[in-house]
Amino acid sequence: MAVYTQVDDEELSAFLATYDLGELLSCKGIAEGVENSNFYLHAGAGSFILTLYEKRVAEADLPFFLGLMEHLAAAGLVCPQPVRNRAGSALGRLAGRPAAIVTFLDGLAVNHPEEAHCAALGEKLAQLHLGGGGFTLRRPNALSVSGWRPLFQPYSERADEVAPGLRALISDELDRLEESWPKNLPSGVIHADLFPDNVLFLGERVSGLIDFYFACNDAFAYDLAVCLNAWCFDSSWTYNPAKGRAMFEAYRRVRPLDPTEWAAFPLLARGAAMRFLLTRFVDALNVPPGALVRPKDPREYIAKLAFHQKVADARDYGFTSP
Amino acid sequence: MAVYTQVDDEELSAFLATYDLGELLSCKGIAEGVENSNFYLHAGAGSFILTLYEKRVAEADLPFFLGLMEHLAAAGLVCPQPVRNRAGSALGRLAGRPAAIVTFLDGLAVNHPEEAHCAALGEKLAQLHLGGGGFTLRRPNALSVSGWRPLFQPYSERADEVAPGLRALISDELDRLEESWPKNLPSGVIHADLFPDNVLFLGERVSGLIDFYFACNDAFAYDLAVCLNAWCFDSSWTYNPAKGRAMFEAYRRVRPLDPTEWAAFPLLARGAAMRFLLTRFVDALNVPPGALVRPKDPREYIAKLAFHQKVADARDYGFTSP
Repeated sequence: MAVYTQVDDEELSAFLATYDLGELLSCKGIAEGVENSNFYLHAGAGSFILTLYEKRVAEADLPFFLGLMEHLAAAGLVCPQPVRNRAGSALGRLAGRPAAIVTFLDGLAVNHPEEAHCAALGEKLAQLHLGGGGFTLRRPNALSVSGWRPLFQPYSERADEVAPGLRALISDELDRLEESWPKNLPSGVIHADLFPDNVLFLGERVSGLIDFYFACNDAFAYDLAVCLNAWCFDSSWTYNPAKGRAMFEAYRRVRPLDPTEWAAFPLLARGAAMRFLLTRFVDALNVPPGALVRPKDPREYIAKLAFHQKVADARDYGFTSP
Repeated sequence: MAVYTQVDDEELSAFLATYDLGELLSCKGIAEGVENSNFYLHAGAGSFILTLYEKRVAEADLPFFLGLMEHLAAAGLVCPQPVRNRAGSALGRLAGRPAAIVTFLDGLAVNHPEEAHCAALGEKLAQLHLGGGGFTLRRPNALSVSGWRPLFQPYSERADEVAPGLRALISDELDRLEESWPKNLPSGVIHADLFPDNVLFLGERVSGLIDFYFACNDAFAYDLAVCLNAWCFDSSWTYNPAKGRAMFEAYRRVRPLDPTEWAAFPLLARGAAMRFLLTRFVDALNVPPGALVRPKDPREYIAKLAFHQKVADARDYGFTSP
């Protein structure tokens, strides 16, 4: 839930007056996203989301995120569309913060994805990877292998507070990942955080992809590994091969994987598990007492990492060889 | 900000299936109200607010609140309209809580009301008082004079933590209010919490009154005194006679006050200030450390009470005699 900044109605009206959206009819803070303040906005021209970018998002990255949403929409993906103000800019300022208005998308996040949802997601992810082609801005993935140890180090001594043996587990796994992390895989723009929260469905049809604020340039297969972790385990943190197969096969019908991606997949899945284990672990140690937001359980990603560590070959996920 | 309960998408779909609202298109938790969890709901039939009633609202009171909204709308007031499900009920259950769907109203709360807003509010308040006529359910005002001392007592020893001398100030004022509180004033259904947060405007026109969850039966002039406190002081907590006059005159053009109401008004204003001073004082002593919601400043109502204590006659508010 996230409304970190209150917006004064007069400031808001003045901001809206720089856009061609007709009369401002309603504005309600919504519990969406964790990095920014978001508002449902109803205006003469329709429904929109107003986002105020809080300090966790670097202002220099905003042209990448907003430009990417425009680029992907031009490629046929359904994602929020930045609205340009009268001066032609997708980025303004409101309540002392960078602010943007994007189109509102219908659809509901799915709490318990089934095979059909996993397949639909796999197809969309491949379309996103192809659709990002030709986007000229670049943003390195700050949360890839070289960023993991610096994230872990300041908290390493407290790791065993979260789970016994966690410090050694992370440290050993980081050694292995840093040593073997695959290079030169097919790369491009990835979403990097395409969890069920960020995919809207109407029935079993994807109606929109949202929250591009971790998007960056990295290996496509790593993005697929992030999704495998996020979508294809059951609520007991057990891998579900039918869901994994559904996602993987749907993905490669749109964008076939090459042999290097197939070979690297188990390691990418370990890396993806490590990335979310680390951010959840750090968040769990940084909850203000009495906070209304409960941090996500880092142990979920300990269990997922342990599963991937036992995988020898992508066939172990239930995928059929390429 | 309030989304205390998360709603599972499958539970939500099942709940919506008991209504004739068409396909469920979107559901977003919104930062509105402090007592309940509220969601913006988009469905085939339009836009709605879904409310889950949390433990601070007594379930037995819900028929009063929902019935009142229907009664007032039939009388021409614009307020959220409860939607009845296929079984004809305005009240269902979702996520283990009583739940209702009401129509979504456009409009924005005004952060800094001007004279024109105060006048518009005065007119609507009088229409609400007249419109409540004939509503047969009753709900006593639990936060009127007999409820104030029981609210204060458990915290009285800590009052001076909030402001030096506060314990004696409240205690003496309660003595005076309990002794002199007016009886037999014209009464009926009052909103009892019609702060600027709960009044939607489009420009200077009131587009809707919301949040009826403190509504009850009590003296009409007390409700007007609540609004005088909430709308007619400047941001430095100084009374603004032009705003007060605008509200009062607009009110009595629709519903003239009788001489007993005129005579009692300064005391009612003191009581209204006491009621909000007490709840803010108790809330300020009960904030969980690190909570995301900052309690409203009780000292605002100490200042307002001090002003009313110096008023000898309703003319001192800038009102012209009846």
